[in-house]
Amino acid sequence: MQKLLVIKIGGNVIDNPEALQSFLKTFAALPYHKILIHGGGKIATQTATKLNIETQMVEGRRITDQAMLDVVTMVYGGLVNKNIVAQLQSISCNAIGLTGADAGIIRANKRSVKTIDYGFVGDVESVNIPQISYIIDGKLVPIIAPLTFDPQSGTMLNTNADTMASAVAVALAATFEVNLVYCFEKKGVLSNPDDDEAVIPQLNPASYIEFKALGVINKGMIPKLDNAFDALQNGVKQVTICHAEELTKAINEGNAGTKLKIKAIGN
Amino acid sequence: MQKLLVIKIGGNVIDNPEALQSFLKTFAALPYHKILIHGGGKIATQTATKLNIETQMVEGRRITDQAMLDVVTMVYGGLVNKNIVAQLQSISCNAIGLTGADAGIIRANKRSVKTIDYGFVGDVESVNIPQISYIIDGKLVPIIAPLTFDPQSGTMLNTNADTMASAVAVALAATFEVNLVYCFEKKGVLSNPDDDEAVIPQLNPASYIEFKALGVINKGMIPKLDNAFDALQNGVKQVTICHAEELTKAINEGNAGTKLKIKAIGN
Repeated sequence: MQKLLVIKIGGNVIDNPEALQSFLKTFAALPYHKILIHGGGKIATQTATKLNIETQMVEGRRITDQAMLDVVTMVYGGLVNKNIVAQLQSISCNAIGLTGADAGIIRANKRSVKTIDYGFVGDVESVNIPQISYIIDGKLVPIIAPLTFDPQSGTMLNTNADTMASAVAVALAATFEVNLVYCFEKKGVLSNPDDDEAVIPQLNPASYIEFKALGVINKGMIPKLDNAFDALQNGVKQVTICHAEELTKAINEGNAGTKLKIKAIGN
Repeated sequence: MQKLLVIKIGGNVIDNPEALQSFLKTFAALPYHKILIHGGGKIATQTATKLNIETQMVEGRRITDQAMLDVVTMVYGGLVNKNIVAQLQSISCNAIGLTGADAGIIRANKRSVKTIDYGFVGDVESVNIPQISYIIDGKLVPIIAPLTFDPQSGTMLNTNADTMASAVAVALAATFEVNLVYCFEKKGVLSNPDDDEAVIPQLNPASYIEFKALGVINKGMIPKLDNAFDALQNGVKQVTICHAEELTKAINEGNAGTKLKIKAIGN
């Protein structure tokens, strides 16, 4: 089986041009097949504010009405995605920018209204494995924006990038040996939120439950880790959570960031 | 040689959701390999106005400073492109949205400053034939936004859609039998601008010069027709200028719009 890296890069890096440029250099130099899934950063909120569109957040998730859907489609699918692609192309990485709609790679369902109406938010329904594989086989490097689409209505949908990374990694685990890496602004999952060096080197489902019970692993990390364990339990070979600057180290030497394991024994 | 349709759709259709939807249905139903190149419409100017960015036009061309480049990258590469792609995917057309940067398909040079500094405007340098062919061979339908990139600096560049359509058609004429169609809001090139039915059925270089001398063919049509004749003289099999609603007729029966011919005799 060929190796495939699925790398998620978060909003904090997107918001910082120097950090982004440095990350993209690292990403371009990585061997193996690879896919980058990027978050949105603060530009969507800033653009919405300038356009007099109010940003509503519930439990850390954006409420996406039609006006906000247009903003995220512009900012995530256009500005952020294309600038990443153009920069990567200038350093010999054959990037191709995609949303879930392009080549129909990620279909979603508009989230049904229970207590909260999230609006045009998509929950991933399926990942088109042959289509993504064709793109990868062509030595192209997919750069995926956090947008999916509803194939019935032909509407774009706003989708969480962590969830998309996990769904893509799981789908491609059938044909590749997939290594999923979540890059963000911390060195890994921390045992003490006030100490940036207090990285938990390894987590398994049991220790994860323990850390949650102790309140050490906080609210923002929980959906990310749930996604990550989900990927691991569905065929993804390795999941790492690390600082964007330690990506190469986390992949090659393995002694950076937090590694997720299914079992504690035998590592 | 396999047939390939290269179709340009103008801004007036983009600006009208019903006309766009109707056009996309027609486009989706066309046989043969196909590529759609779309203009920008008025949404970029409207978005710029809302963001308090001034739109400057010189000789019908937009001056693109950094703020305006961000707007066109958002609007053309994001909003317009992805909504077209999602709509086509919902009617069984395997669309993939691209800018010149994606897969490095259209490289450009930032236009050098002579009398006017157009800013971040790109003049097409080269079209990556193997890369576009790979995408087409995968039964994907490229939907190309009017944006290119500078491979040295990694900057996106604003580019005229008519010129891009002509450049793509010419490049692919080496491997496909290319039929280039410019769709817009008129039934063809008119011999009387006040009579929408006064379509000139056929133009050749000699009659084109004659109509220009008579002032019948006006300023806005000249760059479009220059691009079109350029394509014809560089291997493109057929060039047609027609109304978006007459696309199928223009392709199949050939008695709609204005057909461009290299020679008058023998038609």
